[in-house]
Amino acid sequence: MTPTRKPYSIVLASASPRRQELLRSLGIDFSVCVIKDIAENYPEHLQGAEIPLFLAERKAEAYRDRLEADTLLITADTIVSVDGCTLGKPADAEDAHRMLRLLSGKTHQVHTGVCLRTVTKQMSFSRTTDVTFAPLSDTEIDHYVASGSALDKAGAYGIQDWIGHIAVTGIRGSFFNVMGLPVQALWQALKEF
Amino acid sequence: MTPTRKPYSIVLASASPRRQELLRSLGIDFSVCVIKDIAENYPEHLQGAEIPLFLAERKAEAYRDRLEADTLLITADTIVSVDGCTLGKPADAEDAHRMLRLLSGKTHQVHTGVCLRTVTKQMSFSRTTDVTFAPLSDTEIDHYVASGSALDKAGAYGIQDWIGHIAVTGIRGSFFNVMGLPVQALWQALKEF
Repeated sequence: MTPTRKPYSIVLASASPRRQELLRSLGIDFSVCVIKDIAENYPEHLQGAEIPLFLAERKAEAYRDRLEADTLLITADTIVSVDGCTLGKPADAEDAHRMLRLLSGKTHQVHTGVCLRTVTKQMSFSRTTDVTFAPLSDTEIDHYVASGSALDKAGAYGIQDWIGHIAVTGIRGSFFNVMGLPVQALWQALKEF
Repeated sequence: MTPTRKPYSIVLASASPRRQELLRSLGIDFSVCVIKDIAENYPEHLQGAEIPLFLAERKAEAYRDRLEADTLLITADTIVSVDGCTLGKPADAEDAHRMLRLLSGKTHQVHTGVCLRTVTKQMSFSRTTDVTFAPLSDTEIDHYVASGSALDKAGAYGIQDWIGHIAVTGIRGSFFNVMGLPVQALWQALKEF
C-alpha cells in the first residue's frame, strides 16, 4: 500500500480531533461520521485492553446499517488502567484532579482498541502502552486542569499536551497509541485488509 | 516552577524547528540564537550518548563570550546508534536511503545530549530512547525520502513524520527525546537550576 491507493472508502467513526489528525498523518483519505450517544458501559468481568476492544466493536456494530459496499469503517476506544482501576474521561474538573493524583509518580497502562469493519468482514485489535509519570505537584495539576484540556481525555491527560511534556519520564510501546490511535498497527491492518 | 516564572532569560541555541516547538510546549519564554558552523566532529573513542553530550557542551562553549549575567543557554545534539554505527544527518538522498535501510526491521537508539549554561554554572545530561522499526518496503523509503523531510534529521527520519507513524512499532523511553529534546528531563533540570 502507498498513501494514494484507495481500495475502500474509509470512514473514521470518532469525534476525537487527535484520532482524525493521526489518521491524516498516514496520508490516507477518509471522511468522519459520528453517531452520538453510543453507550460506553461494558460487562464488569472485562479488564484492561478487553474494555476498549469491546467498546470499539460495539461502536462498529452501531454503524452496521449505514455501511456501503465499499465502506471501511474504523472505530476506536481508549482507556487508562492504574492500580487496578479503569479511568475513562473525567466527569468534571474535580474528577480530573483525582485521576492526575492517581497517575502521579507511577507507571500506568493506556489501552486502545480498534475495530475495522466492512459489510463482509470485521477485524479488531488492541495495543497497550506503559506510561511513567514523574511526581506531579498540586500547582502543576491545577495549572493543567485549569487549561481545560483534561476533560475530553481518558485518564484526564493528553501526552501531547503541556502535562505530557513535563510529566512523562518515559513510555514503553506506541506513543500514538497513548494519543488514541496505534497508527503503525492500523497501517499494517489496513495493508492486510 | 510554573510556566510563568522566569528566573533567567532563556536562550535556545538550536536552529531545529522541532526543538523550538518542544521548548515552547513547556510554556517557557525563550529566544533563539544560532551560531553557525560549529564543528560537529568528535573524538573517536566516544560512543553512543557520549557523542551528543560532547557536542552539546562544545556548542555551549562556543557561546561563552555572548552570555549575559541573566542568560541561561540551552544547547542540544541528537544522534542515532544502530549495529555499532553512529548516524547523524544524512549527506544527501542516497545517504538517507542507506540509513533507513539500516534502521528497517530493527531496534536502534536515539541519544540526545543537552547542556545548560550560565556565566557561573554548567550542567549537562543525556537521554537514550530505544526505537523499534517494522520492516520498511523500498516503496515506503522512496516515498519518505522524496518528501524531503529526511535530510535535516539524525538517522534520516522524524518520528513525528509520516514514516514515524507507519514504521515505529514501539519505543522505550522518552518520545520527545527522539524528536530532539528530552523535555521532561529538561523541565526537571530547569527546576533544579
